Amino acid sequence: MPTHSCVVRKVDNVASMISYTLKPVGFIRSTVKGREDAPRQGPEGAPDAWLEIEPRFAEAMLGMEVGHELIVITWLHKANRDVLKGHPRNDPNRPITGVFYTRSPARPNPLGLHPVMVRAIDGTRLKVGPIEAFDGTPVVDIKSASTRADG
Amino acid sequence: MPTHSCVVRKVDNVASMISYTLKPVGFIRSTVKGREDAPRQGPEGAPDAWLEIEPRFAEAMLGMEVGHELIVITWLHKANRDVLKGHPRNDPNRPITGVFYTRSPARPNPLGLHPVMVRAIDGTRLKVGPIEAFDGTPVVDIKSASTRADG
Repeated sequence: MPTHSCVVRKVDNVASMISYTLKPVGFIRSTVKGREDAPRQGPEGAPDAWLEIEPRFAEAMLGMEVGHELIVITWLHKANRDVLKGHPRNDPNRPITGVFYTRSPARPNPLGLHPVMVRAIDGTRLKVGPIEAFDGTPVVDIKSASTRADG
Repeated sequence: MPTHSCVVRKVDNVASMISYTLKPVGFIRSTVKGREDAPRQGPEGAPDAWLEIEPRFAEAMLGMEVGHELIVITWLHKANRDVLKGHPRNDPNRPITGVFYTRSPARPNPLGLHPVMVRAIDGTRLKVGPIEAFDGTPVVDIKSASTRADG
């Protein structure tokens, strides 16, 4: 397969030229305004927050129900994109680890994954939790947590 | 809080102007070349595949071990970004549902989430599975599946 092996050889050049455009579908409104408010215990201790979905995406919420489990994907706009490795949880006792093997927000494409439950629905505002994300964090996607909901 | 409520009122205008740039960190090499090869049973029946990570991100894989569970995030470059609702799994017997409540690839930002296990590591090539993604699909992030790996 000459075409295929050609693509493989070029992967490096191609990858540094290609990019994709992510648009926010909404924003998080949370009492967590910054690092000083962030829960120390990880996502378990996080508060609920509102997702304010852009009205033009209202139809994408059709059928949404309180009590359903979702995965919210955020763009961690405050994260450093140049970090490739570090001590997990900034704990110097833990060995230096690549970011692809951790959940650190600092990574080449700072996407955040948040498994949450729907607490309330008010038009295009969705109360979910618990969620560890700063107020103002862009939401880029929302999915059913169940893979049986494959569309 | 005048600043805050101002931001809330402007959310619609701001969101349609803002965008973020996602760069591929690698590509999937799979025997699944297109829809005709895709497993019918969802992710459960999917094959293993290689993730070819760009050499410049090699350090982000530091500490990676066979047997570890990861979440691979892909950019579903073939997906239709204009779809907001549809029948889950294209089954007309299932009610029309918003894409934020399904796992459909068609959605405003076509991000794919793939929980996988590391099968083999060969330099910057990572064999993982099972994974339901077409050959050539861009990989945009990789995370530990464990939230205890928070960085």
